[in-house]
Amino acid sequence: MRTTDRKRSDAKLDQAVDLFWDRGYYDVSVDELVHRTGLHRAAVYGEFGSRQRLFEASLRRYRERVVAAFFAELERPEAGLAAIERFFSTILRAAVRPKKRIGCLMINTASEVSPNIRSVAHIVSSYLDDLRARFQHACINARARGEIRRGVDVDQVADYLLGSVLGFWTLARSPASTSTLRHYVQGVLTFVDGLRSRSDDTRALRG
Amino acid sequence: MRTTDRKRSDAKLDQAVDLFWDRGYYDVSVDELVHRTGLHRAAVYGEFGSRQRLFEASLRRYRERVVAAFFAELERPEAGLAAIERFFSTILRAAVRPKKRIGCLMINTASEVSPNIRSVAHIVSSYLDDLRARFQHACINARARGEIRRGVDVDQVADYLLGSVLGFWTLARSPASTSTLRHYVQGVLTFVDGLRSRSDDTRALRG
Repeated sequence: MRTTDRKRSDAKLDQAVDLFWDRGYYDVSVDELVHRTGLHRAAVYGEFGSRQRLFEASLRRYRERVVAAFFAELERPEAGLAAIERFFSTILRAAVRPKKRIGCLMINTASEVSPNIRSVAHIVSSYLDDLRARFQHACINARARGEIRRGVDVDQVADYLLGSVLGFWTLARSPASTSTLRHYVQGVLTFVDGLRSRSDDTRALRG
Repeated sequence: MRTTDRKRSDAKLDQAVDLFWDRGYYDVSVDELVHRTGLHRAAVYGEFGSRQRLFEASLRRYRERVVAAFFAELERPEAGLAAIERFFSTILRAAVRPKKRIGCLMINTASEVSPNIRSVAHIVSSYLDDLRARFQHACINARARGEIRRGVDVDQVADYLLGSVLGFWTLARSPASTSTLRHYVQGVLTFVDGLRSRSDDTRALRG
């Protein structure tokens, strides 16, 4: 495919992403995809194979286009407690910016589609595993550097933080107020702060 | 309506609830509702007015049939920190029991439908407000009894707990493992435990 063709095709896929992100999988028909994205009906069935395969391509595209930027902070080799805190501040800023709050396509899909379509569940599952692994990596760093108490169970904390991201984005798509969203993140950060070594322990470790 | 007619009609509505709970609003057609619930097509459009009105009736029925039992613990006038802890243990037990984990219809709907249908958002919003108010009531009791520190911001805590319920049920419907769910609840309970007055403060208050 030539570069301009690829760009044009990516732009159409981006429009499909936006449509699914706002409305979910089941409410968006092939007719609407054709009408709104400029994809030909033949492309939905030919290039992608079906509406479901186009949806799966949209999830992969969303992950490259949107998720990757949020994950970057947690992916740095030295990521620790501060990176976890910045991650939650970043998603809070991103969630409250748009006039219409539509959450996260991946987490919307975890709820809407994943219990009933295995190949979609597989994409969601890989996303959840990756996010969890990033939290775990940051916690292991933080524990090794004495930022958090030695007794902290990093598996448990990683699972808790993963669930907190699902809670955050579900709340962000719900009719709850922006102040509820802020208070929610404040609670998650209180939990994270509770993992810290008390100052005397840290001094002892550093000393 | 005679009692037996009402029972029969409630049973059909219950089947609609179960169908929407498993599959969501947009994936369940009127054809399928007629086929699977025993409702007549005329009833969907006559008694309820439309598929959307039947869905809204299902949400109200779900709230009476399922949500009310979970809320009961938090509704008692003397509910405090222990009631909040029991609430989370109860939803954990309920979520892991079935072979297929389908989450909570109200929270699935908060994500799937509420940004795009105002009357549905209204039902979800009233559910969120009520749950939040119950958490707040329990926190106010707990603070008055010295179970939690006097400086605790009960508005913030109620919002955090509300978001945690959304996180829990979204995680429960996702492909995440049961052990992730348990770890998540453990994290929320750690947060709740962090609200407690330290033993000396409590003793001072009690004394």
